[in-house]
Amino acid sequence: MSRPKKSRTETGRFAYEGLDRLLHEKARLGILTSLITRPEGVAFIELRALCDLTDGNLARHLEALEGAGLVVSEKSQGEGRPKTMLRLSAPGRKRFLEYLEELERVVRDARAAAAAGPKRRALGDDSRGLAPA
Amino acid sequence: MSRPKKSRTETGRFAYEGLDRLLHEKARLGILTSLITRPEGVAFIELRALCDLTDGNLARHLEALEGAGLVVSEKSQGEGRPKTMLRLSAPGRKRFLEYLEELERVVRDARAAAAAGPKRRALGDDSRGLAPA
Repeated sequence: MSRPKKSRTETGRFAYEGLDRLLHEKARLGILTSLITRPEGVAFIELRALCDLTDGNLARHLEALEGAGLVVSEKSQGEGRPKTMLRLSAPGRKRFLEYLEELERVVRDARAAAAAGPKRRALGDDSRGLAPA
Repeated sequence: MSRPKKSRTETGRFAYEGLDRLLHEKARLGILTSLITRPEGVAFIELRALCDLTDGNLARHLEALEGAGLVVSEKSQGEGRPKTMLRLSAPGRKRFLEYLEELERVVRDARAAAAAGPKRRALGDDSRGLAPA
């Protein structure tokens, strides 16, 4: 078997340290994307529908995001029943955009490899049938 | 305060169900991206360096990915000490590419909103200083 080419190994090349653990959660990505699409704010019940979450789940994630200062909530007491509006804070927007940059790096790295894959495979030892079809 | 426009609410619009929980983990994204860049396989110790993980952490994630059939490991007994080689299986490659499509959707949705943000904000009620700077 040919040895892996050491020159291709850069320590931490695929560590993706920018994938902020607070944000890198499926439901939270939905919440943050909803909020970034609506700078004027989104009502709790609408956010729940957009992200297809339960009350409890949404409340739990919002608590974490609000605790970290990324999301701001505001109770409005207009006509009808009180409503909770959620918005992205300025630091929240900044941090989400930074996270998105790292997410784009993952997509770029993997897509480039996927496109180059079949060609590179032809150069490697592919006799053991374990390589992707 | 103006009411949110109901027409913009599509249930589950930002639910991102395609963000496969098995794959949507920072270290696992690193592992899968490393492996997709190297169809000929990556040695355990090299993968550990690429992803900047500890032995135990890498082993644990590989166990989960291998258990689900996404990754294949193979011990080689050539000259020198035995070496464990890891590769993406064909189903693993397929599932990772599907996951990447959903990841691209998140990036597209959020980027489109971020670009449109300032304009939309000017149309909303931005008097409370909570909107992004």
